[in-house]
Amino acid sequence: MKTVAIGIIGYGTVGQGVVEVLARNAREIERRSGYQLQVKRVAKRSWQGIDTSALPFACDTDPFAIASDPDIGIVIELAGGEHPAFEIIKTALEHGKHVITANKALIARHGDTLFTLAREKGLELTFEAAVAGGIPVIKVLRESMSGNEVKRVAGIINGTSNYILSEMTQKGRGFADVLKEAQALGYAEADPSFDINGTDAAHKITILASLAFGIPLQFDSVYIEGIDALTPDDIQDAAELGYTIKHLGLAVRRDNGVEIRVHPTLVPQDALIASVNGVMNAVQIQGNAIGNSLYYGPGAGKLPTASAVVADLIDVVRELNLKSEDRLAEFGYSQVLDRNTLPVLPPEDFNSAYYLRLTVADRAGVLADITRILADNGISINSVSQKNRHKHNSYIPLVLLTEKVREAQMDAACAQLAALPAVSGAVKRIRVEHFG
Amino acid sequence: MKTVAIGIIGYGTVGQGVVEVLARNAREIERRSGYQLQVKRVAKRSWQGIDTSALPFACDTDPFAIASDPDIGIVIELAGGEHPAFEIIKTALEHGKHVITANKALIARHGDTLFTLAREKGLELTFEAAVAGGIPVIKVLRESMSGNEVKRVAGIINGTSNYILSEMTQKGRGFADVLKEAQALGYAEADPSFDINGTDAAHKITILASLAFGIPLQFDSVYIEGIDALTPDDIQDAAELGYTIKHLGLAVRRDNGVEIRVHPTLVPQDALIASVNGVMNAVQIQGNAIGNSLYYGPGAGKLPTASAVVADLIDVVRELNLKSEDRLAEFGYSQVLDRNTLPVLPPEDFNSAYYLRLTVADRAGVLADITRILADNGISINSVSQKNRHKHNSYIPLVLLTEKVREAQMDAACAQLAALPAVSGAVKRIRVEHFG
Repeated sequence: MKTVAIGIIGYGTVGQGVVEVLARNAREIERRSGYQLQVKRVAKRSWQGIDTSALPFACDTDPFAIASDPDIGIVIELAGGEHPAFEIIKTALEHGKHVITANKALIARHGDTLFTLAREKGLELTFEAAVAGGIPVIKVLRESMSGNEVKRVAGIINGTSNYILSEMTQKGRGFADVLKEAQALGYAEADPSFDINGTDAAHKITILASLAFGIPLQFDSVYIEGIDALTPDDIQDAAELGYTIKHLGLAVRRDNGVEIRVHPTLVPQDALIASVNGVMNAVQIQGNAIGNSLYYGPGAGKLPTASAVVADLIDVVRELNLKSEDRLAEFGYSQVLDRNTLPVLPPEDFNSAYYLRLTVADRAGVLADITRILADNGISINSVSQKNRHKHNSYIPLVLLTEKVREAQMDAACAQLAALPAVSGAVKRIRVEHFG
Repeated sequence: MKTVAIGIIGYGTVGQGVVEVLARNAREIERRSGYQLQVKRVAKRSWQGIDTSALPFACDTDPFAIASDPDIGIVIELAGGEHPAFEIIKTALEHGKHVITANKALIARHGDTLFTLAREKGLELTFEAAVAGGIPVIKVLRESMSGNEVKRVAGIINGTSNYILSEMTQKGRGFADVLKEAQALGYAEADPSFDINGTDAAHKITILASLAFGIPLQFDSVYIEGIDALTPDDIQDAAELGYTIKHLGLAVRRDNGVEIRVHPTLVPQDALIASVNGVMNAVQIQGNAIGNSLYYGPGAGKLPTASAVVADLIDVVRELNLKSEDRLAEFGYSQVLDRNTLPVLPPEDFNSAYYLRLTVADRAGVLADITRILADNGISINSVSQKNRHKHNSYIPLVLLTEKVREAQMDAACAQLAALPAVSGAVKRIRVEHFG
């Protein structure tokens, strides 16, 4: 049987997972790929504390030595971060190697540069593990939805945020309290800011939007909100209205462009995605032929992420002999045509239904003033409820659900609402998404 | 742009859906495939009552004329059934055409013969639409799980059965009553026997088992049970124990072989698959790297099924120029190695936990007799409950949940239980499946 020599950059959790999966399932992988896959060199910043004599590969510290090694056929980049991951992949491509990466930040921010280089060289640069861990959502969007015009992608794509929201929902606990526990359990990193503030989900929805709509990667145009402003009251009020709050990445096709956004979202409790709890991920894809479909699984972790890396690896190996022009391009679009030019819409052009939470004086006429402002801004109200359980002095919370509205109108209405003397403090706004 | 000429056999719901999707999404499909896809000829038994002058393709009645037409590059077989679908596909392959089919009965029963012919000819025979409609579970198993040893596939893969069970569960209605309504709504066919008795699900799990384990298609070895013996009492008793009854297709890898079975199953209410209701399908795949993942969507219907057919079509078009040896084989295994020889286990070797329902005399000592018989057969009891609400004369139903047991032992125990004077009638057995 023929052999392919593999170099791995990064030997943390996922790198070790890839080595483990390749060893444990070697026989099955040989049957599937037709090749023996041999991990020949692995780079890690420092091997201190590791018994390298027991490892069946060369232990390097210089990733560029692997990226330029003529004996290596395929490079797997698991270093993470933007630099030097970008330079490592660039070096590997320039040296004629196919590259597999799990690096969402790098693909979201610099993917198009690297894809262009890979195309020029007739090489593959694959990234299934960059979004939603083991769930094969990249391949599904690139290949299985190819007969559809994709209308919407909506995903729970950050396990840390979903774990925290699930705990807050199921146990009525506060954000800070759950976060501390998540860190202790290893579900949240020591510095969890990228997970909590939505940056990680924004990287991932950038990639999914490009796959869904065939547009260039545009991380800087993504609207980003994290989960840190959510309170147990929001979650309880939403539940009383029949909704669960999830942190979603959304990519929505409109007639005049696409919305790409990441934010807490009220989801109807009977939608399947509302039942996705803990650290699990799920991506719902709506197309104009398939309707709604959903893909669920572990969004991170040693072996699930390795599952996606190894699937990419086997795809690349199966296609080692293809001519450049027969290779499927990164987002599944034919190489003879350019990227789609649908613009990414600015937030003021978004269309969304809303949950609004105001603290108002408990006296006659206040509700009339509020509903008048909403009506004047063209906003239809779906439901109104007073939360008397939270009465504080003579103020009570008022919760409204609105119909879909252009976001600029909602901005104007909220400014006017906040200026009312009977309204105390800011207006809390959370978007609502429905799943047909 | 280059053009590919397509012939379609069958112009029922799915055939019309394929024509509609190809027309509606033509621009997107051209961008993705790099080709213009032209439906040139369509065969239908009779075109009576259809205004064929308005159709932009030749309307044939002889499918073999299309299968052997030298101007047709790709044939889409949507006739259904075993014959003459088998002969049509054989003819198309012999004439050098790639073939796409949605025909689960044909693939499950005669797929290996046709795949062998396709390989010999260097052609593709694809079948994404044969299982779970729009859900791309064939591609997921063939390509995305390739780094895994698949441990279990568990699917809700018959929409009619799932609709009936969902209605029985949510509204406490009886089987015959819901079936009649499902027929009126078009969710069940005039002759629903293949859906109700499990044959349709058995066709599909045959295919999924071969994909998951790389074994030959073995429809005749599938254990099949339908939903027609389920009563509202079973569903209510299961609910009180925290379970929902679903009709599942299961393919399970054991050390000594594989179990392939189709039957009603108690599923824990908190498993995501328990929330899949109505005509929707879902397939849960467990692998030794990914852990558990689930794929959900519409399992039938005009446009969802067309979504899968067109995805296959675009894959085939993208690979028109590949050499035979670069083509991915039907189940994702390298062409240089034979099929896996794991045997399909006979039912007596299955391992399963059980729900048992007995009607017993309400007197002292009966429970002791029953638990003694189970213990003597090596069966551990998880829970026992008496259903006094159903007391009839001096008999009451008794519901037990057991731990996993070899089926031969359960057969022996049930025969002994039924022979007890205090037990009235047969012992009702339903298998239980857990999702970690």
